[in-house]
Amino acid sequence: VRIGVFDSGIGGVTVLKELVRRFPVAEFLYLGDTANVPYGSKSPAQVKALCAHAARELGGRGVDAVVVACNTASSLALPEMQAELGDVPVIGMVESGGRAVLERLQECPEGAPVLVLATRATVRSGAYGALLKKALVGTGHAVFEQACPLLVPMIEEGWNDHPILAQAVREYVSPFAAAPIPGVALLGCTHYPWIQPVIERALPGWRVVNSARAVGEVLSRAAGTAESSAAGAEARVTWLFTDPEAVPAFRWEDEESNA
Amino acid sequence: VRIGVFDSGIGGVTVLKELVRRFPVAEFLYLGDTANVPYGSKSPAQVKALCAHAARELGGRGVDAVVVACNTASSLALPEMQAELGDVPVIGMVESGGRAVLERLQECPEGAPVLVLATRATVRSGAYGALLKKALVGTGHAVFEQACPLLVPMIEEGWNDHPILAQAVREYVSPFAAAPIPGVALLGCTHYPWIQPVIERALPGWRVVNSARAVGEVLSRAAGTAESSAAGAEARVTWLFTDPEAVPAFRWEDEESNA
Repeated sequence: VRIGVFDSGIGGVTVLKELVRRFPVAEFLYLGDTANVPYGSKSPAQVKALCAHAARELGGRGVDAVVVACNTASSLALPEMQAELGDVPVIGMVESGGRAVLERLQECPEGAPVLVLATRATVRSGAYGALLKKALVGTGHAVFEQACPLLVPMIEEGWNDHPILAQAVREYVSPFAAAPIPGVALLGCTHYPWIQPVIERALPGWRVVNSARAVGEVLSRAAGTAESSAAGAEARVTWLFTDPEAVPAFRWEDEESNA
Repeated sequence: VRIGVFDSGIGGVTVLKELVRRFPVAEFLYLGDTANVPYGSKSPAQVKALCAHAARELGGRGVDAVVVACNTASSLALPEMQAELGDVPVIGMVESGGRAVLERLQECPEGAPVLVLATRATVRSGAYGALLKKALVGTGHAVFEQACPLLVPMIEEGWNDHPILAQAVREYVSPFAAAPIPGVALLGCTHYPWIQPVIERALPGWRVVNSARAVGEVLSRAAGTAESSAAGAEARVTWLFTDPEAVPAFRWEDEESNA
């Protein structure tokens, strides 16, 4: 089975890693639109056009399913991508992440809030808010969305352990950290799992949800791919970048060992 | 006279403001490639292609001169833009900024260092370093280039007065602030004039050069435009953006009153 994984840049690697772990016998085609990254500050029309183009590219390479491993693209352009890909299932981050939040919320006391951390474009799209508010109407769980536009550039600068990044995270989440009941925070951007410990420290008592985990389950159903933990099996990953020279240095091996 | 001003986004507005002040009777065409901003993290090939496209766009609108109000584009793609524009003079930031640095250096003691602050792409291009080192060979003035990739996203986030931005600036310049003789620091990115006071505080005793000022003089010679301070005259500015919805909110009037 051949699975396309699409992201605006390299953030989707956090999702790919999770998929490779779950489906070690699949063949993965990772498409990063590094010529046009970041999507988070672009207009919806621009994001839709770029995503449709990416979907055509992946469709032309005979994929069996496409995972849109980019929250901005998932929030704004799933219908456009599905239209290009016909019967091939297109799986986004929003539904998967939303489902994971609702599951974790079962463990929380009544009135526990939900906080979605994401790029400005994802927050503006209102996709997470609409999904979660609809599911939680009348339950007493409030839903908040916080745009954190500086975290992606800081992570790409390699400042993951830098005090300035920790300070920026506190700046973004401090109003929620002060809530009387800790709740569930969703990492609504695929870069954020890289700084999950920093976010957890800034939100004491909160459950932090990595939506990359959830997307694997949805993929399993959609593509009919049997999850396998076959020891020794090795997924094949082919890398496609629209601007190969613009790919920030990242070490897949190191990432693996940190996982 | 019709002058094209090109930038990857809105940073070139700091240059446009200076040009409008100096040439109040000219007509300005500002082209911001907001669909593809930022250039600072793209590969040279990608930047060259986008700049050639922008030059064709401005050339088709009958400009008499083009100011490339983007240091990344100036460092990487002046020849490509000039090739598209034939006899129309194309003026970049690097030569103008370099000249301004050399002038200010006259006021400094022997051995005063030169520091260029810029995006990663501008620093990688080595354009400022090559120009300044050649001009200063044998003089005892050392030339340093420091990439400051987080400053543009912070400025676009509106954190100009935020302690996190001041901390990031200190992080970038602290090795130079400790130099025994203060020198000349060039704002090698058109966003940086917006935080010039923060940079000046982080580099006590240094002379900080805004290259937008210098570009006006070069334009005056190239386009044969008479500098004018005619009271009441008002330059006309036409705005073109490749993704109009992606233009960050900015207030020309407020900017003017802060100038």
